[in-house]
Order: sequence, then C-alpha cells, then structure tokens
Amino acid sequence: MQNDVFLRACRREEVEYTPVWLMRQAGRYMEEYMAIRRKYSFLEMCKTPELAAEVTLQPVNRLGVDAAILFADILLPLEGMGIDLEFAKGEGPVIHNPVCSEEDVKRLRLIEPEEDVPYVLEAVRLVRKELDGRVPLIGFSGAPFTLASYMIEGGGSRNYVNCKRMMWQAPEVWHALMEKISKVVVSYLKAQVAAGAQAVQVFDSWVGTLAPEDYRDYVLPHSRYVMEQLKDVGVPVIHFANNASTLLELVREAGGDVIGVDWRIDLDEAWRRIGYDVAIQGNLDPIALMAPPKVIEEKVKSILEKAGNRPGHIFNLGHGINKETPVEHVIALVEAVHKYSKR
Amino acid sequence: MQNDVFLRACRREEVEYTPVWLMRQAGRYMEEYMAIRRKYSFLEMCKTPELAAEVTLQPVNRLGVDAAILFADILLPLEGMGIDLEFAKGEGPVIHNPVCSEEDVKRLRLIEPEEDVPYVLEAVRLVRKELDGRVPLIGFSGAPFTLASYMIEGGGSRNYVNCKRMMWQAPEVWHALMEKISKVVVSYLKAQVAAGAQAVQVFDSWVGTLAPEDYRDYVLPHSRYVMEQLKDVGVPVIHFANNASTLLELVREAGGDVIGVDWRIDLDEAWRRIGYDVAIQGNLDPIALMAPPKVIEEKVKSILEKAGNRPGHIFNLGHGINKETPVEHVIALVEAVHKYSKR
Repeated sequence: MQNDVFLRACRREEVEYTPVWLMRQAGRYMEEYMAIRRKYSFLEMCKTPELAAEVTLQPVNRLGVDAAILFADILLPLEGMGIDLEFAKGEGPVIHNPVCSEEDVKRLRLIEPEEDVPYVLEAVRLVRKELDGRVPLIGFSGAPFTLASYMIEGGGSRNYVNCKRMMWQAPEVWHALMEKISKVVVSYLKAQVAAGAQAVQVFDSWVGTLAPEDYRDYVLPHSRYVMEQLKDVGVPVIHFANNASTLLELVREAGGDVIGVDWRIDLDEAWRRIGYDVAIQGNLDPIALMAPPKVIEEKVKSILEKAGNRPGHIFNLGHGINKETPVEHVIALVEAVHKYSKR
Repeated sequence: MQNDVFLRACRREEVEYTPVWLMRQAGRYMEEYMAIRRKYSFLEMCKTPELAAEVTLQPVNRLGVDAAILFADILLPLEGMGIDLEFAKGEGPVIHNPVCSEEDVKRLRLIEPEEDVPYVLEAVRLVRKELDGRVPLIGFSGAPFTLASYMIEGGGSRNYVNCKRMMWQAPEVWHALMEKISKVVVSYLKAQVAAGAQAVQVFDSWVGTLAPEDYRDYVLPHSRYVMEQLKDVGVPVIHFANNASTLLELVREAGGDVIGVDWRIDLDEAWRRIGYDVAIQGNLDPIALMAPPKVIEEKVKSILEKAGNRPGHIFNLGHGINKETPVEHVIALVEAVHKYSKR
C-alpha cells in the first residue's frame, strides 16, 4: 500500500497528515462522471462493474483523496430480498412493493451476495486491481434503519410517517424487519471485504428523524448487531449517522471503529461526547464547497484546529457532495486539508 | 384571565399542571378547518380577519389547549417589504422576486404593520375579543434566518445553497438583509402585542441547516437584536429553533424567555444545556400523534418525567402537527398532559 494514512487514522495511529475522502466523491459534480452518466442510466452504471470501477477511480485520480469509495447505491442489496426497485427520472428511488405487514416481512429473502449482487463484488475486485495499492478502497452499506425507511415508505420521505407508525404500532413486525435487514447488511459487507474492500462504512442517512428514546428502543439493538458481526472481519468500520448529533452517544454505543459526524456539531464537542478511544470522521458542511476557496480554507483550518492533531481524525464532509459543486473547489479542499494538517 | 397557566409557566412560576399548546394546532388535520379551507385559499384565510380568528379558536374549543396561537403565515410581512409571494397549489410558498444582490436588499422596504398587515392585527383583536380571557393568545413571526432563507431561495429549500452562498460570498449583503428583516420582525411582533397578543413565538424553522460557527457569525447577532428589542414589550417571548439541538446554547444566548426544542433531544438534556433560569417548550415527535393513544400516553409521561415538575415547562410538539393526524389522538395528548402533570 503506497498511501495507508487513511487506514492508520482509522486505527488512531500517528499519521503525517490528516487523510481526507468525501462522501459521494464519485458523482455528478464531476465532468468525467457526467460523460459516462449521459450514456447509461444510474442503475446500469451500478450494475456494470467496469463502469462502477471507472467512476470509483475518477476522484482518486482527479482530487488526490486518500481513499476510494465504491460507486454503488445503498438500495442495491434490497433487490435480492424481493424489493422491486426503480430509479425514476428526477424522482430518486421508487419501491413498487413497499413493506407494510408481517406477511410482507416474511416474504423478504436473505441475500447471497455472490448471487444477488455479483456486480458489486466484481466492481470491488476491479477497483482493487486498478488501484494497485495507491489508496485503500472503502465498501459500504446502508444501515438497518435507513434501509427499512426506504422499504416501508416506498422511497425517500419527509416525515417517515409509515416507518414510525410500524415502529410504534407493530413493534414485533418492525423488529422482524430490522433483524432481516441487519443480516443482509452483515453478509453484504462481509462479501465486500472478502472481495477486497479495506474498510467499510455503514450509512444511517435518515435516522436523525428519531428521538433518542426511539433510537435506543427500535434501532440501536440492530445497528449493534451489525457492528458486532463486523468486529472480526479485520477492516475498520465507519458508522455514520446523518443529522443525528443528539444520538452520537447511542451511535457510539452501537459500535464502529470510526464515528462519522455531520456539520451541525463542532468536531471537538462531538469527539468529546463519543470519547477519544474511537476515531472520528467529518465534518465540513458540503455546501461550504460552493464558497470561494478562501472561505473553504478557513473552514478547513477551523475543523483541523478542533481535531487538534489528535490521532484518529479523518477529514470528510458532513454529508454527500452536492452536484452543483465546482470541482476546483473540491481539489482546493483536499489540498487545504493536506497542507494545514501536516505534522 | 380564566386560564393563565401557560403565561405563568413562561415566567417559571408554580402551576397546577403543565400547560400545553401545539404548533400548527389550527390546521388541516381538523375537520372544522377543512370546512373553511375548502371554500377559501390559504392566503384568503390569512387575510380575512374573521376567518383567521375562527380557525384560531377551533383548537381552543375542540382540544382544550392552554393557549391559542394566531392563524397566519410567517411570510405575510414580507409582502410589505416588496416580496411577490404566492402559495402555489401543492407546492408551498413561491417568491417570484427572490433576493440575490445588494440592489435587491436596498429595494426592500421596512413595513408599517398597521398599513401592511392590518388583517393580522385585526385578527388578533377579534380573537382576543372572542376568547374573552379563556386562554392567552400567542402571536408569532419567523426568525430572521428563516425569513431570509425563503427570500433568497424563492421558497422552501433542501440545501440552502443560495442562502449559504450569500452568507459566505457576500457577507455584507447578507448582514444588510438580516438587519432589515430583523427590524421588520421587531415592528411586526410589537404591533401584534399592541393589538393584544399576550405572548409571542419566534420560529427559526430552518436554521438547523447551519453549523454552530455559521450560526454564531451570521445569525446570532440578528436574532439577539430581535430578542433585545422585545425585552420591554411586557409579554413572554418564545424562541424556537427547529432541528437545532446542537445550536441550543447559542439560541439561548440570542435570547428569549422560553426556548423551544424539537424532539431530537431528550428534554432533560436540553434543559440542562440551556440552563434552568429559562423556561423550556417541547418536545414530542409530531409523528407520535399517529401512534395509538396508549403509545402517546407513554411518550407524554416520559417527557413529563424528564421535565420533573420543575416550574417553566410548556408541553408542545417538536414541530407542527402533521395534516394526517387523527384529531382524537390530539385530544388524547392534551388530556394526558393535563392528567399526568397534575401537581
């Protein structure tokens, strides 16, 4: 491995500078990505290992980030469970057979990754080969709550009414669903690691809609199961819960070697709350990348100061890159992180 | 005043039970409201004092809440500033001349409430007359950031890209806009109080999109100005910042007699952080009203326990009532709060 600074930071070892990668770094803000996206649908790109591998590598080549993250969608493993998934134009994901009842949950299958998502695993292998040790490759999965929310709501949601209704009205159905999803998440991530992923991130993108008590009762046991099952796979696990600053202690309790935090909390406050015996990832407001590079630089310095050169900080955004972001600003960000964090 | 338990709680005086009112308690979940809404547009309802007064009173009569809140929209005072506002069907508010530049800001006028929003003030007078001292009437306004976000984005927004871009790229334009809006908020709220409002709430509905540093630099001075100007009007001021649990200390620093909190934080933790020398309002997840009354009751008890009978708790939701909420559940909530908080 030529550049293992990201992996060392995940293990809270000393590093020469703070590593940086960016959520959704392979994406629409990049001309190279759009050149492919214009020719193929989003799902075609996900399901064609050569294309997925190519866009995974684009930001590594262009931005100089310290890790690659696999290009994929968190909903892909749901198809193998029996979920009828479509990416409708301009609408985001649509699930045509949402999960409403005990029977629906019973019908869901566990997945065999090599059979159900072979293209994801093949993309992992291709990327590893093409990276040839330049930087590590991160695999990922949605967290149980976030996947459940899509399955129940039939897509994205504003208020998660159906999801919460199931939680509170039919907790046994809810828990049965979460157990099934958790098993899928574990086998999906283990398969990615077996194929070559050198770290994995679990995204709980929408769990910030929950009150702390509800997280504790309805989500934590399942996220903890996932984290425990991943303890022995031998790669660092990043646990990112978005818009969930008030859940940080509980997210930490669920587990993970690295806890990801969004931009709504000061990084020093977040680290103090989760404890210094765990690594932290974050946390620039993604919209700050729209600001002039001078402003970006100031914000980078401020976050690095809050991290205080303590081992175990991985620089990232607080959520995915916005598609309108100028790529030059992203490059400026990566340079600023490297420059101002030099030990 | 027959029932002043809400006002006493705002002043942290002893009360016989915890008062409760609900954000958006006059709204579409109520059949009485829909009967009027079917005949008039939303703006017609806002601008016809008799209709606004009628829907303001509906939840007082039906639910037994301890305060009325004026039926109005936070964007109404913007029209007098020169903003071209429309409520497009199914789309929410649309502003046809969003604020983009220094010139746009210069063109904005300060308002004369009695000339620009006479219907709001007339509605206040009507409600006071019809309430006849049964419960107090709360007036309200959007907070400077939230109003600015609508003016800049031209409506609701997901990522507040234009808003943040102005903040970071043209801070002098941003601050000029915020100063103008702050003056409008102050004169608007003072006029409501002069017309008879017995408390006011300032809603910072969308400020939760900001990192703490950005709140401190770009919002706090303006919200503080508003709160300071309202100190001598003689009514309690409630300051509610939505999805802003990590900003609570800063919101408190900006001011207000009562700090409103959303459901993403435990009420005891929130109160500890803002300090016990200020009252607190909140904080049931509005979607919990979809759950069976048994679950609602449990959640009410849990929040009341966290408040611990300390003087100065006003029960509320963590955000507005959802339109799909069964009205019987809302009644059950109000009853549960009264029953389980009896001293």
